Amino acid sequence: MRNPILIELTRGALVESAHAGVVAVVRADGGLVAAAGDAAAPVFPRSAIKPLQALPFLETGAVERFGLGPAEIAVACASHSGTPRHVTVVEGLLAKAGLTPAALGCGVHEPFDAAVARDMIRRGERPTSLHHNCSGKHAAMLATAAHLGEPTDGYWHPDHPVQVRIRRVLEELTGCSLTSEVCGIDGCSVPNWAIPPAALARAFARFVSGTGLTPQRAGDCARIFEACTAHPDLVAGPGRFDTLVMQRLPGKVLVKTGAEGVYCGALRETGLGFALKIDDGAKRASEAVAAHIIARFHPEAQQAAPDAVLRNWRGLDVGRVRASLDLEAMLATCRVH
Amino acid sequence: MRNPILIELTRGALVESAHAGVVAVVRADGGLVAAAGDAAAPVFPRSAIKPLQALPFLETGAVERFGLGPAEIAVACASHSGTPRHVTVVEGLLAKAGLTPAALGCGVHEPFDAAVARDMIRRGERPTSLHHNCSGKHAAMLATAAHLGEPTDGYWHPDHPVQVRIRRVLEELTGCSLTSEVCGIDGCSVPNWAIPPAALARAFARFVSGTGLTPQRAGDCARIFEACTAHPDLVAGPGRFDTLVMQRLPGKVLVKTGAEGVYCGALRETGLGFALKIDDGAKRASEAVAAHIIARFHPEAQQAAPDAVLRNWRGLDVGRVRASLDLEAMLATCRVH
Repeated sequence: MRNPILIELTRGALVESAHAGVVAVVRADGGLVAAAGDAAAPVFPRSAIKPLQALPFLETGAVERFGLGPAEIAVACASHSGTPRHVTVVEGLLAKAGLTPAALGCGVHEPFDAAVARDMIRRGERPTSLHHNCSGKHAAMLATAAHLGEPTDGYWHPDHPVQVRIRRVLEELTGCSLTSEVCGIDGCSVPNWAIPPAALARAFARFVSGTGLTPQRAGDCARIFEACTAHPDLVAGPGRFDTLVMQRLPGKVLVKTGAEGVYCGALRETGLGFALKIDDGAKRASEAVAAHIIARFHPEAQQAAPDAVLRNWRGLDVGRVRASLDLEAMLATCRVH
Repeated sequence: MRNPILIELTRGALVESAHAGVVAVVRADGGLVAAAGDAAAPVFPRSAIKPLQALPFLETGAVERFGLGPAEIAVACASHSGTPRHVTVVEGLLAKAGLTPAALGCGVHEPFDAAVARDMIRRGERPTSLHHNCSGKHAAMLATAAHLGEPTDGYWHPDHPVQVRIRRVLEELTGCSLTSEVCGIDGCSVPNWAIPPAALARAFARFVSGTGLTPQRAGDCARIFEACTAHPDLVAGPGRFDTLVMQRLPGKVLVKTGAEGVYCGALRETGLGFALKIDDGAKRASEAVAAHIIARFHPEAQQAAPDAVLRNWRGLDVGRVRASLDLEAMLATCRVH
């Protein structure tokens, strides 16, 4: 089965390029609100599940033990832009846990933020592992290991207790068995397990509604939601789509992008979760589909300003990025109750 | 009709992302050697037809008039990297035609070459229109207008004689009627007409073989082929796929990338042309398909070195970029005679 076209890019009178994919909007009880494509086929969620991967950081007591707060929780869920503020928060998280950046195993890349990257080049500075977009997640993994007296070296290995705990949490939230057959290695070297979009969407619905969770887990999910929506700048960065969406709808939605065209979100008012994956991995399409879904449930986000971030904020000046007829049809079927 | 998957990206044991598209390999007489997908549906060729767009630059006598040579012809066909050498050649082309960079209408972007862009940031220099990857094509358009006494202002307009001549040449080589209904505006602001991949591939087969062309046009096509293959560094830039392919197979192939996943090529020994378009516009997939086609007709390119540029030279370290079964089947049907 081929997934349907979701997004089309026009040039002149023609469709120049098109992006196929799968999308699911789900209630916490697993009931499908709407879907397009094969929502039962596993996809690697990549960084889109960082808010779920952060749960053991809270559940083990590491956050309490080291006196950490919403900023550190938000950066633990981040694919951040590597601005000075991100670096400061991650470095502080490590320091409070008695660790240094030398323990980070995420690797090094230039800051996503182009202005920050330029400033560093101008000053002759080289990026460090703190600038890696996943450094906050890695710092939280390290702090959790340190809190429990586990070795910090090798924390990225699938058999390390840090990753075993994360796998168990993901299994509980998604209801999926995450075996080595569906395990891949993420860009930042930690394991990533393939999960069907329908199960990912349900996990985010449970995350935002607390449905079916223990009171402690529901409370920790709420703390993560509040930390991310209170610090949308820390979860991504200035001008980034995730940050703009959460700033436009304060306290209402948590959204998280992942590599290769994955996108997940949780809508607080309706208690819904959504997950999508663009077959070809294009971010321009995953963000466009996410924008359409969010606008369907939060039309006020578009009406708030003519240059609504949820529409055409990266639009081409020689054509349009538009929803396909299949995506329009799927959006039209979205009903909350 | 949906085009077939051509390229798959694996992570662990799973296919994480996939790219569908259309590809056609054609003889100069129009005979199809092999194809996958709908090769009769028009696609915007974007920069992949720059070697064809350069023909009026030679045919009008502008090259002779201003004493220009292979370097200027190669840069006229380029989507270049904006290195100092590219800038020097384009500026020289303009100067020999009595023009300055102020006449360029292509716009401004940072050099594609990351090291050059960094050096400019370090020195506090801002990019100019000379650094735009299309500046050579624009300089050739301007020189042609200057040679014929036409206004240089507005040379990018579809009704300007410069563009009318290019449209006529494209119609003659492709056999297509290029009306305003299939006209779009390219990234550098000149018109671009949608053309079926089968017709594009045939145009490149005629270009490289001279079949069906007047002796003068066949000679000008040969001069363009020789200029590009003699200066592969000018057509793209250091480390770029097009440049590496033409360096690996000197004098044997002309290849040219275009935006949104288009790729065209001409194979001298077999007299074949090929054209392809990735539906979603991904360059990683267009280059991978091109590499497979070129390797099919020039296996020596792979045997030349273990780190063959035609295979995995941008490979992921956590998976593979591989041909789909449909692409493998199409490659297996490729026969020259």
